[in-house]
Amino acid sequence: MGDIRCTGFAAAGVACGIKKNGKRDLGLLACEKPAAVAGVFTRNRVKAAPVLLDLERVAAGRCRAVVVNAGNANCCTGQQGMRNARRMAACVAGELGMDETEVLVASTGVIGQQLPVARIEAAAPELARALDPCGFGRLAEAIMTTDTVPKLVWRRGEIGGKAFTIVGTAKGSGMICPDMATMLCFVCTDVDIAAADLRECLVQAVAPTLNAITVDGDTSTNDTTLVLASGLSGAAARKPEEVAVFRDLLQDLLAELARMLVRDAEGATKLIEVAVTGAADAAEARRVAYTIAHSPLVKTACFGQDANWGRIIAAAGRSGVNVDPQRMRILFDDVVLYARGGWTGAAAEAAATAVLQKPEFRLTVDLGRGAASAGVLTCDFSLDYVRINADYRS
Amino acid sequence: MGDIRCTGFAAAGVACGIKKNGKRDLGLLACEKPAAVAGVFTRNRVKAAPVLLDLERVAAGRCRAVVVNAGNANCCTGQQGMRNARRMAACVAGELGMDETEVLVASTGVIGQQLPVARIEAAAPELARALDPCGFGRLAEAIMTTDTVPKLVWRRGEIGGKAFTIVGTAKGSGMICPDMATMLCFVCTDVDIAAADLRECLVQAVAPTLNAITVDGDTSTNDTTLVLASGLSGAAARKPEEVAVFRDLLQDLLAELARMLVRDAEGATKLIEVAVTGAADAAEARRVAYTIAHSPLVKTACFGQDANWGRIIAAAGRSGVNVDPQRMRILFDDVVLYARGGWTGAAAEAAATAVLQKPEFRLTVDLGRGAASAGVLTCDFSLDYVRINADYRS
Repeated sequence: MGDIRCTGFAAAGVACGIKKNGKRDLGLLACEKPAAVAGVFTRNRVKAAPVLLDLERVAAGRCRAVVVNAGNANCCTGQQGMRNARRMAACVAGELGMDETEVLVASTGVIGQQLPVARIEAAAPELARALDPCGFGRLAEAIMTTDTVPKLVWRRGEIGGKAFTIVGTAKGSGMICPDMATMLCFVCTDVDIAAADLRECLVQAVAPTLNAITVDGDTSTNDTTLVLASGLSGAAARKPEEVAVFRDLLQDLLAELARMLVRDAEGATKLIEVAVTGAADAAEARRVAYTIAHSPLVKTACFGQDANWGRIIAAAGRSGVNVDPQRMRILFDDVVLYARGGWTGAAAEAAATAVLQKPEFRLTVDLGRGAASAGVLTCDFSLDYVRINADYRS
Repeated sequence: MGDIRCTGFAAAGVACGIKKNGKRDLGLLACEKPAAVAGVFTRNRVKAAPVLLDLERVAAGRCRAVVVNAGNANCCTGQQGMRNARRMAACVAGELGMDETEVLVASTGVIGQQLPVARIEAAAPELARALDPCGFGRLAEAIMTTDTVPKLVWRRGEIGGKAFTIVGTAKGSGMICPDMATMLCFVCTDVDIAAADLRECLVQAVAPTLNAITVDGDTSTNDTTLVLASGLSGAAARKPEEVAVFRDLLQDLLAELARMLVRDAEGATKLIEVAVTGAADAAEARRVAYTIAHSPLVKTACFGQDANWGRIIAAAGRSGVNVDPQRMRILFDDVVLYARGGWTGAAAEAAATAVLQKPEFRLTVDLGRGAASAGVLTCDFSLDYVRINADYRS
């Protein structure tokens, strides 16, 4: 992944001693000039210190760098936590000769312990020296917690005959039910775009991507997605149709990152797309889809490769939407296993069971009420999810 | 438990071959005269055939018997399912010389398979012969599915110097998040009470008991609670204060059954009372309590005996209630582990960890917003929950 570049940006990832296993835990993304910036953050009422700080700073629409640590969420840490978030930004600003308000911060890891900010300060010179236009892979590693693989993707696009690049990295494999973005996601691009347009593109692009995934229904306190635009590619997104080219590519990139997050979810053995069709409106489609995607009984059945459509229809029934079981249909990929009020038989069940043996499949629930639909990406609920989360802090 | 009696009632439990393991799977509760009856049922939009039939029949306020099978839920079984529910009632009515509309039915088990009603019809003569005033223990066994112990409790009360009895049995250890009652619960009493009063007592008594427990958030399609009153004790509940004596005792009995259900929940190793205090109103207290009680991260941490208060505060934060982390307090039994915006220290954490080693404990979240409170009983999320539910139908 060493050849990924995005004009104007450099990235780094080093180990500063926050993760107990000595792996990289401190990352940096920096721009050689003030970049346009947009961010979306958790809607959890309990917000971590770095989220509160970024909410203040991102309003300016400009920033130069983002510093991020893994292993400690700096959440529920009070005034000391806010001071530590500022110190984290200040030490990087000092190394790079920026104003500290031009530096955004992010943290992920355990909630409720004070951030060992002195370790970050001690590592700041090394972090700054490590900045590299080809350093995205190390940044992607530095933000991992229970993730088993780094997530780094890129896209190339063209506006007015001029090429531009988008590079994105994300982390998160538990406490995932973004109410706006997922755990941490950083995107940079060299397209030239106004901060207000960048924000609009981000808001539109996260809705069907990072905001339509769930691992366990637990919305994090630290969810942060930031996108920085250096403008140095020469490709400018000014007219609505130019902005749309960028937005579509950004959405495509975020969709791939979202899929990678769910595929690497804690303990997951299956990637499941829950599609609800035939709904009266999009809101009820989402409500049914999330109820199914969160159901421990549906998720454990998927882990057990059991085509237990009864649990799916029961989840739809308790969703609060006025579903009619006589009009519903349930499909495993293209296999109809429930229709016209009943089971479709042993042959269909055998085919559905075969679908469940695949690493990725779609569960479709057609409500037979209208034309609206919604999709949610989720995963199964495995023994390893319980093992990982029972032992997380020990 | 052979000495439990309730004047006018007899009960039975036999094996008819629906459960694969040959255990008792067909139960009967019968009254020697038409009893007053009240019932509350699942609010899941997908309702099993026996629930639909009982909803029709319970409106009369009178019944003579309840027949129940385990191993098959008779749900999503269409018109044939409704016919089978009626046949189940009719064969028992025939044996006992009752009108079939005087017989209620209940089923629990796998969703979506047709009920093998011929086995029930074949066993009906044996079932009727087995009726015994001391047969409640066998009824309690016959309704078990993944339950590991039968649940049978009783209370004795007095009105106007005359004694009366309440006997109740319940089953259910997964797909438990009653939106009105839990899986199946049958109560009989020999108090003399009008059907309308009986219904009012039941509605009031289930709210803080069977309606305040959750195992996995999955509201069943078959939830049914029935209470039958023979009136044969000589104790009459007519005046409001007499009705209140009965209602309080009924609530006390249902509270014990609710506790037994959660203690025997699938895979559970801990009984957890989630208490939310200091809420602005009862609705928001319930909302926060259920969000915590359903959080897979909180439940797996309890399984791992990890006093991870960060997950509790994060769950409260995503509940939709406008909580303020600066004003919240979190207690493990009497140990305050979070207050004034931060962790209370290592000594408190050690004490909270000791609390988590107990089989039963209370998690209290004080919101610091007002005077309302709510409590929910739940359990931890263990490896065995996943094992049980991954393999349920195989």
